[in-house]
Amino acid sequence: MLNLARITVVLVRPRNPINIGAAARAMANFGFRNLTVVAPYAPHWREARSAVGAPELLRNAKESATLADAVAGCTLVVGTGTIARRKPEQKVLSLLNLAPLVKQELDRGGRVALVFGPEKHGLTREDLSWCNLLVEIPTDPRQPSMNLGQAVAVCLYELAARVFPAESAASAPTAAHAPDPAYAPEKGTERMSAAPSGGLDRLAGVIEEAMFAAGYSPSSMQAANRHDLRLLLRRLAPTERDTRRILGLFRRILWRLMQSPKRN
Amino acid sequence: MLNLARITVVLVRPRNPINIGAAARAMANFGFRNLTVVAPYAPHWREARSAVGAPELLRNAKESATLADAVAGCTLVVGTGTIARRKPEQKVLSLLNLAPLVKQELDRGGRVALVFGPEKHGLTREDLSWCNLLVEIPTDPRQPSMNLGQAVAVCLYELAARVFPAESAASAPTAAHAPDPAYAPEKGTERMSAAPSGGLDRLAGVIEEAMFAAGYSPSSMQAANRHDLRLLLRRLAPTERDTRRILGLFRRILWRLMQSPKRN
Repeated sequence: MLNLARITVVLVRPRNPINIGAAARAMANFGFRNLTVVAPYAPHWREARSAVGAPELLRNAKESATLADAVAGCTLVVGTGTIARRKPEQKVLSLLNLAPLVKQELDRGGRVALVFGPEKHGLTREDLSWCNLLVEIPTDPRQPSMNLGQAVAVCLYELAARVFPAESAASAPTAAHAPDPAYAPEKGTERMSAAPSGGLDRLAGVIEEAMFAAGYSPSSMQAANRHDLRLLLRRLAPTERDTRRILGLFRRILWRLMQSPKRN
Repeated sequence: MLNLARITVVLVRPRNPINIGAAARAMANFGFRNLTVVAPYAPHWREARSAVGAPELLRNAKESATLADAVAGCTLVVGTGTIARRKPEQKVLSLLNLAPLVKQELDRGGRVALVFGPEKHGLTREDLSWCNLLVEIPTDPRQPSMNLGQAVAVCLYELAARVFPAESAASAPTAAHAPDPAYAPEKGTERMSAAPSGGLDRLAGVIEEAMFAAGYSPSSMQAANRHDLRLLLRRLAPTERDTRRILGLFRRILWRLMQSPKRN
């Protein structure tokens, strides 16, 4: 957790205790530990910190009078927000492109701050003047403004997943096409292995007998049905266990069909 | 917005009106429009819909009595949650690897549902039996459980940014996620698209009748068999055409079994 510990989340003048709590919860979800709150509204800040179930990192949060103080030790200060209403003076980057920059900064021993503005109007031009760059979450232009707790969750997800894949839980390397094994459950995969071709052929044989016994189609169709069934079973790719179970069902059906005289 | 319109967000038995509102807001932020709410607690659902500033998509949301109904028209049903407490019966995928699958499904004309469980305990084993796969947000194992509104925001951010980069605002296509010719729909793939959930339910119903008519297993096993069959069909993912053909075979078998008296 060495690298995550060098990222600080900074909330500037947050108002709503629910949002402060939500931001802290998202930090805990994604393994971040360092929270600094700048000039919070005191009664709401006390309420958020003392809430039942507040994560430990919220009780350990630093308080700072100014954003300048809060980010004084950081080498890369990233403001968040939308540029809808004004022309920013910083470089603007999509959140999609942030991870490599943060990784680079941490790799060379830097410290990173991720700065979130107050609920209503976001970071001011003055606030942004402490930021090296402004990162935007790509949102629908008709509804660009995100809830604070949700914006924090999205940014931390992106960083946790794409800067620290080794430190986040369920991540597997992102191949453009995830091959099947990437989403097979790891335990008990024996059961998930595909049935061998011979097993599929045995199953096809019993299904074909059941088709015949049920008078499913004229005998002129038999060769075509057999071909289609072979293709179908390969495409569905049942596991060994699936194959045994389907075989069991069709054997039972076949046995019952053979007991009764044909009436069609 | 053609593709985004073929994704439905499904909230199963949500309780807290603030979370319902937050989920809807995240949908609006990322350009999603279709919300279905399953069996909501009525007073809170009314409260959420009538809240000041509720997005239009919340007022237009569909209500559904069961998850089966809510996803009946969908060809890829994705459950969300954490596997911390149990061993899932579905394929499990990190959210990081979901985008290519969703894109592939939409490219071949399918419809996708993203299903979120209730706040306290998430989706049940029964709920998950309607899902083709379970997607996990990679979180810190010490605090894996996310707030509902934040989980929705993170999932929709990931899909909006990485499935529809052209439709989301500030994103530039990143090399890792550049369009891949392999995603292009093949000719005649219409027939290859997965059968919708409702079609699988109809097929399962007829297979179950055939099991019963053939005396396949004792009636005490009926609920377990039904559950296993639901999982099996989602895992095999037959196409619409496959489904029609298997249905035809089982209808024929059932008809023949019903003609003859039971002799076992």
